[in-house]
Amino acid sequence: MSSREASRRDVLRAVAAERGLDAVLVTNLLNVRYLTGFTGSNGALLVRTDGADLFGTDGRYTTQAATQVPDVEVLVDRATVAGLAKVAVQRGTGTLGYESHDLTVDGLAGLQKVLADAGGAVPELTSIRRAVEAQRAVKDDDEIEALRRACAVADQALAELAAEGALRPGRTEQQVGRDLDARMLALGAEAPSFETIVAAGANSAIPHHRPDATVLRDGDFLKLDFGATVDGYHSDMTRTVVLGHAADWQREIYELVAASQAAGRAALAVGADVVAVDSAAREVIAAAGHADHFTHGLGHGVGLEIHEAPGIGPLGAGTLAAGMAVTVEPGVYLPGHGGVRIEDTLIVTDDAPELLTLTSKELLVL
Amino acid sequence: MSSREASRRDVLRAVAAERGLDAVLVTNLLNVRYLTGFTGSNGALLVRTDGADLFGTDGRYTTQAATQVPDVEVLVDRATVAGLAKVAVQRGTGTLGYESHDLTVDGLAGLQKVLADAGGAVPELTSIRRAVEAQRAVKDDDEIEALRRACAVADQALAELAAEGALRPGRTEQQVGRDLDARMLALGAEAPSFETIVAAGANSAIPHHRPDATVLRDGDFLKLDFGATVDGYHSDMTRTVVLGHAADWQREIYELVAASQAAGRAALAVGADVVAVDSAAREVIAAAGHADHFTHGLGHGVGLEIHEAPGIGPLGAGTLAAGMAVTVEPGVYLPGHGGVRIEDTLIVTDDAPELLTLTSKELLVL
Repeated sequence: MSSREASRRDVLRAVAAERGLDAVLVTNLLNVRYLTGFTGSNGALLVRTDGADLFGTDGRYTTQAATQVPDVEVLVDRATVAGLAKVAVQRGTGTLGYESHDLTVDGLAGLQKVLADAGGAVPELTSIRRAVEAQRAVKDDDEIEALRRACAVADQALAELAAEGALRPGRTEQQVGRDLDARMLALGAEAPSFETIVAAGANSAIPHHRPDATVLRDGDFLKLDFGATVDGYHSDMTRTVVLGHAADWQREIYELVAASQAAGRAALAVGADVVAVDSAAREVIAAAGHADHFTHGLGHGVGLEIHEAPGIGPLGAGTLAAGMAVTVEPGVYLPGHGGVRIEDTLIVTDDAPELLTLTSKELLVL
Repeated sequence: MSSREASRRDVLRAVAAERGLDAVLVTNLLNVRYLTGFTGSNGALLVRTDGADLFGTDGRYTTQAATQVPDVEVLVDRATVAGLAKVAVQRGTGTLGYESHDLTVDGLAGLQKVLADAGGAVPELTSIRRAVEAQRAVKDDDEIEALRRACAVADQALAELAAEGALRPGRTEQQVGRDLDARMLALGAEAPSFETIVAAGANSAIPHHRPDATVLRDGDFLKLDFGATVDGYHSDMTRTVVLGHAADWQREIYELVAASQAAGRAALAVGADVVAVDSAAREVIAAAGHADHFTHGLGHGVGLEIHEAPGIGPLGAGTLAAGMAVTVEPGVYLPGHGGVRIEDTLIVTDDAPELLTLTSKELLVL
């Protein structure tokens, strides 16, 4: 595992050097995981431009740190961040970068006190903003492979439940949700990617409906938004099916959302502006008079977090790059009646995007 | 649901008034859940001493907020915290409390800017520290009932797996861990409380071992540390069993840890100092010459978080109060050989503590 994470640290090291920093203190736990491979619940990392990096954790993780982070010096200290800060002063650090989007107000005050009391020249603190998150937006081969496996688990879980007749009138949303979660775990997921959404009938018009005791009925839309976490990477997929028979209005909005989703996928290209990608899908829905019924952004990055950079929506900023993992998930929601969302997870490439969620997007009548 | 949360808000309102604040901005999502009942992924709460509270969330949760937070005015705004801050200025707020342990450095800067730009008198910001967490440390009846159910799910899952022979030589730690997780979900858990620990043989000497492909063998210690989440509340239990037959050294350290754990439970009393509770259990282990093999604190509060106030350890501070939910979990770890931890979740009461994790603590040889 070490060379992959070492390369990632070298990228951050170069960013730090470019910004005139002597070291960066990484406190966001997912960023620490990304840069070291450490999966425990307490860890921080000091990346130094002189190469003398230091990983900090507490005594619970001494063994795990030695195994997962074999190529970085480890400091075991109950006060993890304070321990690293002291060493930063001892080793001489003129300017220290920190993550102002992660460190709390209390955390910064504590850090400033430790730096002042460490008995050396006090480093100047400066935020590195979301430098590591920006790095994480572009996935390397190992990350894409983890995402492929996470998507495959979700595909397989849904296929099995559909084949077994678990998605049928008479069952409740909660039962279906628990089945999906349990099946993903049985298939090797560490956890669901997020709280699985199962929304039947009128509930399907609620974009983020929590599964409740609502009973599935013949003629219902059944919207399933779920994913699996594998090696820390999250898949995200939504499929909407119809139970029993599909009415004309259901076919109509389903085909509309499917066309919008296809347009969104087709717009995923290296260099594409995220606002333009959103528009490509949104215009299809707007042209059919349903602009007001598509009430959220088109998609988002996925990886170690279920929502990460880049955001793809009307208020987004930036362009797509090869290796970004994103969702494309337009929806049309008719309050009180029902709604459709279709969502895939894909990788942006120099050619057509690679589709990771392989479940069919034909309207499925179960 | 409303009157319970309304009472909690009134407690915070009284704390705010006592500290001379006109309002408190609660940003910690679990604190928001505690004070409103809202279970979504984005919400914040303005509690005002004049009683005109305001709950903020984004458009995904309009319906859910109306259902879960029927008794508080709702503000739907994509920029949730900024939206509440603007209203705070509009309605006149001289001094505004905020959660400095939750708000990030960037979050505070953003808040200050919104307050300054809102076009009214700019409120003075002051931290309320962990006022809501302190309130949460003492559970009310509904919370204790949720904890009881969460503990019952974990008890039942373990009992079923043991009865089915799932804890047997030849299986792997990962298989056992997945079985435990899946069974808890099937029994109604929303999720495992944390990443389930299954540690066999020498791995049992690692306090927080991640289940891996290690195969369970005859004569192994098998340490299981796991819990279920029900209605957002976490149970936490550790049991250590022996597979096949127990050697003398295993019986010896098992009985030692069991005696230490009983001493810790017996020390749980209203008014007891948390350091003294830790000592009561630790001294039993130290007297047997194993002080260096008990490398962590005795326990911690549990509730909406798996680790919350109060901490019970040598470095803790404060005393116990009736209604606190805590774990008692001493361990003895012999590196390279094996280890034992025994952990219960209990409620501090005016009489003997109420034991919520009911699985037997007799040494079980499977």
